[in-house]
Amino acid sequence: MDKLKIVKVGGNVIDNDAALSRFLTDFAGLVGPKILVHGGGKLATQMAEQLGLPQTLVHGRRVTDADTLRIAVMVYAGWINKRIVAGLQAAHCSALGLCGADGNALRAVKRPIADIDYGWVGDITPEGVNAAWLQTLLEQGLTPVFSAVTHDGKGHLLNTNADTIAATLAVAMSRLLPTDLLLCFEKKGVLRDVNDPNSLLPRISQAEWAPLKQSGIVHSGMLPKLDNAFSAVRQGVASVRILWSGDLSQVEGGNPGTLLL
Amino acid sequence: MDKLKIVKVGGNVIDNDAALSRFLTDFAGLVGPKILVHGGGKLATQMAEQLGLPQTLVHGRRVTDADTLRIAVMVYAGWINKRIVAGLQAAHCSALGLCGADGNALRAVKRPIADIDYGWVGDITPEGVNAAWLQTLLEQGLTPVFSAVTHDGKGHLLNTNADTIAATLAVAMSRLLPTDLLLCFEKKGVLRDVNDPNSLLPRISQAEWAPLKQSGIVHSGMLPKLDNAFSAVRQGVASVRILWSGDLSQVEGGNPGTLLL
Repeated sequence: MDKLKIVKVGGNVIDNDAALSRFLTDFAGLVGPKILVHGGGKLATQMAEQLGLPQTLVHGRRVTDADTLRIAVMVYAGWINKRIVAGLQAAHCSALGLCGADGNALRAVKRPIADIDYGWVGDITPEGVNAAWLQTLLEQGLTPVFSAVTHDGKGHLLNTNADTIAATLAVAMSRLLPTDLLLCFEKKGVLRDVNDPNSLLPRISQAEWAPLKQSGIVHSGMLPKLDNAFSAVRQGVASVRILWSGDLSQVEGGNPGTLLL
Repeated sequence: MDKLKIVKVGGNVIDNDAALSRFLTDFAGLVGPKILVHGGGKLATQMAEQLGLPQTLVHGRRVTDADTLRIAVMVYAGWINKRIVAGLQAAHCSALGLCGADGNALRAVKRPIADIDYGWVGDITPEGVNAAWLQTLLEQGLTPVFSAVTHDGKGHLLNTNADTIAATLAVAMSRLLPTDLLLCFEKKGVLRDVNDPNSLLPRISQAEWAPLKQSGIVHSGMLPKLDNAFSAVRQGVASVRILWSGDLSQVEGGNPGTLLL
């Protein structure tokens, strides 16, 4: 089989009908086996507000109580996931929408309660990915589309970060076939100057990353994203590319964004 | 492959945690290939009320406007579907939750506007079922779990009646492998006297149905359900059984409810 592409797209695209439509056309046009992982967008927060459910934040992280989980599953695994799947089908991409419980695709562990109880939040490792089954789906010409919902195998659904799902899927799939991870972003890639779109770093190697990080050149908000990306590379992912979602179609034959090797 | 069982379960079970839990255990215990189709329950109506969305009824039928569709997809294809899938996984049944857009499983046609515009409602025929793909999933040991949401292949999701989906799936799958349709119900089956649970008709043949219908013995609310069931039998479904959801485990080796042949 050709190299696998795992693409992660975030809420900024999902919340914008025109951007989403363009993105789905570009994604459908990618050649070879592919998997999409999508984030949530603002709809879950809006629905929780409309329903009068208070949101609890601890250290800036949302606590997923039972009501919040229900909203997250409805919005992420329901409306957003199925809307994306229907859009991809219309673009002749045979998409299959999944949460982690479907086909036991992503089995997670409910985060243990230490000083904070994050509620119905799941942590995953590559061992929790049903990679063999996903490979079977890809061989059948299907394109799995993941929402950021996992399960614990005991009947509970869990909220899991979409970036983490994308990176963990990439590591697990890399054990079966060469895999590139593409993280779509609102900027053109990693910038030397966050306010200057022309300061794009086209390529960062593992060896270059530590001095670059220490130099303070890279915007602090990017540090965890890049640390996670290099962690995926160290665990066998062929490459990670951080790019603007509008540049996805340039991936075939081009070199958009920042390539991490 | 063994005979396929397609089971339809309605809102009365879905709205009751204890009944749903028992049902999922019983369903997971069914031997051989199987497909579950679930209805909606009251949650979609409750959510629409909480969000202040007015429900439009025409001749007693709900009109599916854009907001109503979004709620239906969130609740049916999101929360209820994924909750059922997670519950079945915990019961060691490898469930895969689907709406009609997933894998192009159920392609429908938006109902044409005649005197009434029903909105985002889809009508399906056996030709719209991706039966070959569903057979592949069954051969892999997976159990498809359908919510009552279809798509039109042009990027639109559509609301479709769960009984209709179950019967249409049964007709389409019957062309590939022998298929029994099991319609779960709040009563023990077809009763001679709707108020007497001991008046169960254990078996009705196609030949017996017309006179029975004319006799006025069968409760009028059951007539469309039975007409649809006999239509499925005429189109090749091996048998249709109408039974109480709590009797599902008796299907193996037993003869619960009313068998239509």
